[in-house]
Amino acid sequence: MATKPVLYSYFRSSCSWRVRIALAMKGIAYEYKAVSLLKGEQMQEKYQVLTPMAQVPSLEIDGFVINQSLPIIEYLDETRGEPALLPKDPKQRCIVRQISEIINSGIQPLQNLKILKYVGDDKKLEWGHKFIDEGLAALEKMLKTTAGKYSVGDEVTMADLCLVPQVYNAGRFKVDMSKFPTISRINAALGELDAFIAAHPNKQPDCPDDLK
Amino acid sequence: MATKPVLYSYFRSSCSWRVRIALAMKGIAYEYKAVSLLKGEQMQEKYQVLTPMAQVPSLEIDGFVINQSLPIIEYLDETRGEPALLPKDPKQRCIVRQISEIINSGIQPLQNLKILKYVGDDKKLEWGHKFIDEGLAALEKMLKTTAGKYSVGDEVTMADLCLVPQVYNAGRFKVDMSKFPTISRINAALGELDAFIAAHPNKQPDCPDDLK
Repeated sequence: MATKPVLYSYFRSSCSWRVRIALAMKGIAYEYKAVSLLKGEQMQEKYQVLTPMAQVPSLEIDGFVINQSLPIIEYLDETRGEPALLPKDPKQRCIVRQISEIINSGIQPLQNLKILKYVGDDKKLEWGHKFIDEGLAALEKMLKTTAGKYSVGDEVTMADLCLVPQVYNAGRFKVDMSKFPTISRINAALGELDAFIAAHPNKQPDCPDDLK
Repeated sequence: MATKPVLYSYFRSSCSWRVRIALAMKGIAYEYKAVSLLKGEQMQEKYQVLTPMAQVPSLEIDGFVINQSLPIIEYLDETRGEPALLPKDPKQRCIVRQISEIINSGIQPLQNLKILKYVGDDKKLEWGHKFIDEGLAALEKMLKTTAGKYSVGDEVTMADLCLVPQVYNAGRFKVDMSKFPTISRINAALGELDAFIAAHPNKQPDCPDDLK
């Protein structure tokens, strides 16, 4: 097993993106292996050996393979150094996890490629728009009570790692972000940070040249 | 603020069910407040004040209100006594979280009432069946490598709290569970435990008499 972690990622996968931000924030060097969801490479045997869910991201690290983005981020936070991605206080940790889950289980699963394919080309824009719009409306209400400079107070947390890819996807589904000023403000502030710049889809080796 | 925690729950909500098991396992007494998803009570102002996502469960505890089931369970585990619902070892914790997320973000969001209403009455059985069947197939593969008596080793963990309600829902969508012997075996073992019996939908005050 290589000592350098290996990230199996797709440039535009929002869950891969979250993990790329975490790795960048923690300063962890890793090998990037692209898995094209568009070509269905996640369904190939060599990838399924890694992860039965046939999804990206997967992270090969410390002699085992993890998938599911939030468990990966929690693992990195428990085993790697500063900066912490979850606060120490249990209530604050809980609030960070809650915001993360509003996106992770409340919005993202309804806009992923597998679901949209099943929904069909004629309906997928309306479908994605509806669920992202509703989810962000709830998130906006919550962030008004928790945000400082970022989603929870003034430190970057796991919640922010979920927020930025979700806002990017809102753009793809033509959601009117002017309705969500708190989300928009936080997203803009995060977009200036080095780790977030490095983790952006258009900085990844599998991003097509015409999207860079 | 009352000292006794208040759980806002719907008897058949799988996310409420997970939290009920956690509360029962930890021996935490609580007041049960039913929110009927079928009647749309979660959309009422008095409930939305509690939780912007308009979903159950919500737990009022220690002077704040949490929703999202996995953050609630993690909070209870961090602040309340034995038995632990996550192992101490970071890798084992990660595996528990991974299995929990396969269900929490990979399967459950696609079968919830809000989505099924939007999918429509003529298609919802096929839709739910497809995504539960695919998700459980992946879960079965994973559990073959992690399970002991329960999902991860021989202790009950958060993963088991997610598993039981998911298997119940598989039944409602006519998924053939004989294809998933590991899941079925673990589910049967868990079903004998007091906390799981107490948390079952048919033991809740809002369960209609004809379903008891």
